[in-house]
Amino acid sequence: MTIDHTHDPALRSWVTSAEADGTDFPIQNLPFGAFRRRGSGEALRIGVAIGDQVLDLRLALERGDWSPQVRAQLAPLAVGDLNAFMALGAAARISVRVALSAALSEGSAQEGVLRGCLVPQADAEMALPCRVGDYTDFYAGIHHATAVGKLFRPDQPLLPNYKWVPIGYHGRASSLVVSGTDLRRPLGQLPPGPDGVPGYGPSRRLDYELEVGALVGPGNALGEPIPMDRAEDHLFGLVLLNDWSARDVQAWEYQPLGPFLSKSFGSTLSPWVVTLEALAPFRVPFARPDGDPPPLPYLDSPLNRAQGGIDIRLQVLLQTAAMRAQGLAPVALSRSNFRDAYWTPAQLLAHHASNGCNLRPGDLLGSGTQSGPEAGQGGSLLELSQGGQQPLALPNGETRTFLEDGDRVLLRARCELDGARPIGFGECVGTVLAAPNP
Amino acid sequence: MTIDHTHDPALRSWVTSAEADGTDFPIQNLPFGAFRRRGSGEALRIGVAIGDQVLDLRLALERGDWSPQVRAQLAPLAVGDLNAFMALGAAARISVRVALSAALSEGSAQEGVLRGCLVPQADAEMALPCRVGDYTDFYAGIHHATAVGKLFRPDQPLLPNYKWVPIGYHGRASSLVVSGTDLRRPLGQLPPGPDGVPGYGPSRRLDYELEVGALVGPGNALGEPIPMDRAEDHLFGLVLLNDWSARDVQAWEYQPLGPFLSKSFGSTLSPWVVTLEALAPFRVPFARPDGDPPPLPYLDSPLNRAQGGIDIRLQVLLQTAAMRAQGLAPVALSRSNFRDAYWTPAQLLAHHASNGCNLRPGDLLGSGTQSGPEAGQGGSLLELSQGGQQPLALPNGETRTFLEDGDRVLLRARCELDGARPIGFGECVGTVLAAPNP
Repeated sequence: MTIDHTHDPALRSWVTSAEADGTDFPIQNLPFGAFRRRGSGEALRIGVAIGDQVLDLRLALERGDWSPQVRAQLAPLAVGDLNAFMALGAAARISVRVALSAALSEGSAQEGVLRGCLVPQADAEMALPCRVGDYTDFYAGIHHATAVGKLFRPDQPLLPNYKWVPIGYHGRASSLVVSGTDLRRPLGQLPPGPDGVPGYGPSRRLDYELEVGALVGPGNALGEPIPMDRAEDHLFGLVLLNDWSARDVQAWEYQPLGPFLSKSFGSTLSPWVVTLEALAPFRVPFARPDGDPPPLPYLDSPLNRAQGGIDIRLQVLLQTAAMRAQGLAPVALSRSNFRDAYWTPAQLLAHHASNGCNLRPGDLLGSGTQSGPEAGQGGSLLELSQGGQQPLALPNGETRTFLEDGDRVLLRARCELDGARPIGFGECVGTVLAAPNP
Repeated sequence: MTIDHTHDPALRSWVTSAEADGTDFPIQNLPFGAFRRRGSGEALRIGVAIGDQVLDLRLALERGDWSPQVRAQLAPLAVGDLNAFMALGAAARISVRVALSAALSEGSAQEGVLRGCLVPQADAEMALPCRVGDYTDFYAGIHHATAVGKLFRPDQPLLPNYKWVPIGYHGRASSLVVSGTDLRRPLGQLPPGPDGVPGYGPSRRLDYELEVGALVGPGNALGEPIPMDRAEDHLFGLVLLNDWSARDVQAWEYQPLGPFLSKSFGSTLSPWVVTLEALAPFRVPFARPDGDPPPLPYLDSPLNRAQGGIDIRLQVLLQTAAMRAQGLAPVALSRSNFRDAYWTPAQLLAHHASNGCNLRPGDLLGSGTQSGPEAGQGGSLLELSQGGQQPLALPNGETRTFLEDGDRVLLRARCELDGARPIGFGECVGTVLAAPNP
């Protein structure tokens, strides 16, 4: 049996940029993504990020020295099919991770060959990492749910089901786009004015939502729930997710069946999937605040209590068009931590399948907006501007209540705990374009 | 230019069963479906229903005599890819329809060859007709919305947005199944009892919903709305849809983000897609009741007013396990008509894309439950039993408030108007199995 050294913080890669301070992609990370060489028009390839490079797994399989088992496990990746690899589950993921970690480590005999399989990230055009059959968006950020609830329902911010049911709804899969894709401001029905007639035009309350997305590994058959103690076996890894939202459209359309067009005009994913294995050193105990009801048994397990949480530091940054013209860097709007979510990814997944709903490899479970417990930690402008009442002052003198055309929103995530090499998620970026003519 | 005789009620087919009284599939229909010969395990094929037969389009392309244009248009169908054919749009659909209609007509020189391309429907194992990338469920049945609204919100059955916004939400694509697939009763969280703690177990209020599903033809690019006067160019055809619902789960989970697990455990589609062309003789003017607001301009067009409606007679039938054991035929529970919907398929599609959301060939738009205006015309048991308060008496002495294990629900649809040959949709059937162990 291979011993897994892949988390050892002392492990170093022969890829020099992977040893740079502050890199998101040291050898302890090894996230998967889909790319083509910029402008090549070639079929998508699957790669692994290392420093500022991508290891092209198609070339790596062709040229590298791998065991027969690893060759078989790399095969779907080499033909650009991350979904098929996701379906293989944790054993294959760990086996490939151990092999790649060894091959990319200082002193590896494969250095010479694999050097020729690296593509600079600057030359890689990223795509969605996998086919997302279904996208579900949860509402597991209790601080967000409370803050937004106050705006929509001052008398009852948190509904009676919140602490029992991992609230979620189906999102739109077709309009998921990869980081870097510009986003047109949506048109939509706007709440009626004094004449009682709703408007139709560009949303005036365009917002972002800071979320973590969990991607499903092996699926389940329709009609067969996934028990809580096996839920993580069905998870592959995490990405960042910006669930852009048109708040005016949302307020008018969402009763009684939930958000629809206020969300479906685009949702942005970060390109690199950070695997459960890379996140292992950042797992933390998961508990509820004193006085809250315990999860129902189908959403509870000893493992989830011991280490269901994941310590991921999240950050939203904004760069307006004026800031870009002035050469100003993006400014941080808020920070929060995924460990503050009210439900863990395992609970979201077990709940999702609890009615027999079949999950498929590559399905996306959004966490809901991750706001921190303090004021100023809201994961959306709706919260930070208190429903548009309190404009945010930006360092260059501009203000914002909601997003304006040209605004660029960046989500970032880092894992940093004592005893582990820090890892990051890369960026999840999108820039707002003007709406089309109504 | 070919003259289109395909709707002529005098047109007769050499397929004898297509001339039988009451057939759903005369030569004026010609719906598309996906099938394999029962037990063959072969790759799916696309066929056209004619009487009690399926014309296998793979064989028909190989052996038949077609123009080069029709050969090219049949090509995606011959390899089993209805989505690719859907993407071609109305011109290709009409061209293939005219060619198939001529070839299947009495006196066609192709009779001899095409006879060998027929598979009895009894020997065909049907599958979902196409890949459904995204499934959206609307709420366009105003009689249903009003009746259900009364049960959930007696003070305000129809919310203020209903007559302005085609209310809809994203559904679950992975759990769409074809007619004939059994359905396990779902487990789920049930509303809290007096102790305030929700239960977890088999739904006790399992229901069906009678819906019409519209399948998308050519899609649109993300960020580019579809104007109302071109909306029907993006529709392919219609199917029947049973949107099974767990009412107890729904009541507890649906605030504030809408139905989720109460719907995602399975939705049943009829296997044959009836094209817009087959439905042409059954188009009817579309108008709103006096005093209702006109649709906003982006949801209005002269064509939609002139013939946006479709006269489709809908019916729900139930056969319990006891009825099957007693040799009793299914009993009709309710009847309604799709022309009573508050929004037309074109309006649903234009609204869906109005924010720039990209629709893809094969996407499914459910109409919402189609209940009639009168009492006893509810398209769900929730309505017929008035929220479970008034059990329905069945002819064999059984009663029902909600579905019991072994119940079989059948949806049927027929178009019958003077001057046209009646057509039907075939059946949309599912049988309820016992829940898994919690």
